[in-house]
Amino acid sequence: MNILVLSGSNVGNKTAIASKSVFDAIKNRYGAEHNIQFIDLKEKEMQFSDGRNYLDYTGDTKEVTQQIMDADILFFGTPIFQASIPASLKNLFDLLPQNALRNKTSSILTTAGSNMHFLVPEQQLKPILGYMKANVVPNYVYILDTDFDKDTIYNDDIHFRIQKLVEDTLILARAYKEIQRQEEEAYGF
Amino acid sequence: MNILVLSGSNVGNKTAIASKSVFDAIKNRYGAEHNIQFIDLKEKEMQFSDGRNYLDYTGDTKEVTQQIMDADILFFGTPIFQASIPASLKNLFDLLPQNALRNKTSSILTTAGSNMHFLVPEQQLKPILGYMKANVVPNYVYILDTDFDKDTIYNDDIHFRIQKLVEDTLILARAYKEIQRQEEEAYGF
Amino acid sequence: MNILVLSGSNVGNKTAIASKSVFDAIKNRYGAEHNIQFIDLKEKEMQFSDGRNYLDYTGDTKEVTQQIMDADILFFGTPIFQASIPASLKNLFDLLPQNALRNKTSSILTTAGSNMHFLVPEQQLKPILGYMKANVVPNYVYILDTDFDKDTIYNDDIHFRIQKLVEDTLILARAYKEIQRQEEEAYGF
Amino acid sequence: MNILVLSGSNVGNKTAIASKSVFDAIKNRYGAEHNIQFIDLKEKEMQFSDGRNYLDYTGDTKEVTQQIMDADILFFGTPIFQASIPASLKNLFDLLPQNALRNKTSSILTTAGSNMHFLVPEQQLKPILGYMKANVVPNYVYILDTDFDKDTIYNDDIHFRIQKLVEDTLILARAYKEIQRQEEEAYGF
Repeated sequence: MNILVLSGSNVGNKTAIASKSVFDAIKNRYGAEHNIQFIDLKEKEMQFSDGRNYLDYTGDTKEVTQQIMDADILFFGTPIFQASIPASLKNLFDLLPQNALRNKTSSILTTAGSNMHFLVPEQQLKPILGYMKANVVPNYVYILDTDFDKDTIYNDDIHFRIQKLVEDTLILARAYKEIQRQEEEAYGF
Repeated sequence: MNILVLSGSNVGNKTAIASKSVFDAIKNRYGAEHNIQFIDLKEKEMQFSDGRNYLDYTGDTKEVTQQIMDADILFFGTPIFQASIPASLKNLFDLLPQNALRNKTSSILTTAGSNMHFLVPEQQLKPILGYMKANVVPNYVYILDTDFDKDTIYNDDIHFRIQKLVEDTLILARAYKEIQRQEEEAYGF
Repeated sequence: MNILVLSGSNVGNKTAIASKSVFDAIKNRYGAEHNIQFIDLKEKEMQFSDGRNYLDYTGDTKEVTQQIMDADILFFGTPIFQASIPASLKNLFDLLPQNALRNKTSSILTTAGSNMHFLVPEQQLKPILGYMKANVVPNYVYILDTDFDKDTIYNDDIHFRIQKLVEDTLILARAYKEIQRQEEEAYGF
Repeated sequence: MNILVLSGSNVGNKTAIASKSVFDAIKNRYGAEHNIQFIDLKEKEMQFSDGRNYLDYTGDTKEVTQQIMDADILFFGTPIFQASIPASLKNLFDLLPQNALRNKTSSILTTAGSNMHFLVPEQQLKPILGYMKANVVPNYVYILDTDFDKDTIYNDDIHFRIQKLVEDTLILARAYKEIQRQEEEAYGF
């Protein structure tokens, strides 16, 4: 399967560090079986969605959207800005068609300054992923600024939870593939 | 596995009819393999949660909460009252401990008078189920009053979607059981 | 104006203590001008809504709903149970008609065990109040268990914020009364 | 007071048309008393927030954020993309400091293809405005594609509701100014 880990922020480096930890955890355990990619939006020159089909953009905008469309499993790393996801991440969703995430198992990891926004992924991001038909993994990893020490996550509990998120996501992705296979069989797609 | 279909309303009969359709769909397809129960809250004399442990209640309150705790798979049928779930259903959650739904795969079906509340299950019910550690099935069936003709759902598309919800839920439940098994193995529970 | 402070919990005493603080703050400052009532749901024998008109109930259920309908200003005290409001409070809303809170200025105070549920009033309660046409006061007071010392709130900042909530609510209620007056004038009600 | 009407979309023209209707309604009724501005994001070259202070940007990004900061009353026109607000609008919030909307009365009008997203302003936009300390006007105008005929809103009920939104917002803004004045007096700001 194609696995894409995407750091959805273009501010600071905590979301990228956390997303990279997810990428490494997948690579270590499933690197031989699956094709695993990493995107840090901060390194991309993205255009705002202007209503065109995603295939009509050029450069990074086209490449990033294409990689999302090609993925079977998605890990969205997001910071919390103003009690919601950042525009940089929302823009990716705006660029794609409504059913873009159908049959894609999608997981969330969040970096935040405070526990007061613990429900933001639940209330602001999951409804978007659900609307786009993603198979959303129920649990998510929520990482506080205080879990970081410079460029690493030093709280071991976070690494443990990232490991578990990765495992759960992969098992669920296989289950969803089985659902999809049975559907296609039943309806002769 | 123990499967419980629960109609969470004590007003009207639409939620019970829809929940009964789910029950029948499971019975037809999986009746031989699984233990399937149906509860209509309207027929129960429930007490409001007063903070006691659920085992300390008596009568219907004890029986219903015990059946939820015993289930591996839960289907929650809910109407929409005042842009949220009814108190009758919320009370069940209040009666139970926080982790009551851990390792229980949980699906939602909703009856509503208008499409304007389509996001209520997403925004009001899923966060509760998620908090209680349920494995929430992403898609849900949303049934309008106009899909009913007296005591039956006459819109065939709804029956098709109920069928699909049941199948998806059962496949996911097996996937989650596998996740649970691997966890218990890894940590020697 | 009729002001009603309502403690929406029937578990523990923190929500009642906090609601009583609001009641006292109003009484001290506006006691001469307004009619101020206090209800603690824990002391009431409420029935679950069964779909009847609120006037058709008897006893406490009828009295409490009638007092809500008679209020111009409402302060809802709520604990957080399972990432949402308790069934005891939701039941009040279920008992009332959809437009029950029209022209009623409504404020929220919340007691909670953790900051992780800071957004529950925003995401779970405000949408209900808004649907019922309340004029919802944007800010709310969120009180942690650690702000309490036995039967009092010992964190002075909370008292300051309750004071401010009361003042803001009263000024807003007057503004909304003016909006209502202008409407009725314009349309000759 | 400075009033800013902002069309938050850079796709299509429905949100701009609706926002322009709000602008005209204010101009007609309050043009003599207040300074009223209109911004259509579609005509602006905005940069994504990269974490800098809003004063450190140049061009349209600086001008638009400055106009928001200078406003006393804000009307946010938003389409619904993927069950939330578009990145173009979210980006404005990301560019500004957390308390940017303090003491600013803020109203919402929404254009959408379906009633199924009626709760998006309630669940996705209001929590952001609330977090940024805006005084959010409870009711909002929700306009369907079918309310438009080419470049005009032909459904008269929408014009009536826009008119009412404008009036309510102006009365509330005055009430909030009074709250602010009393606060500043009390604390000697």
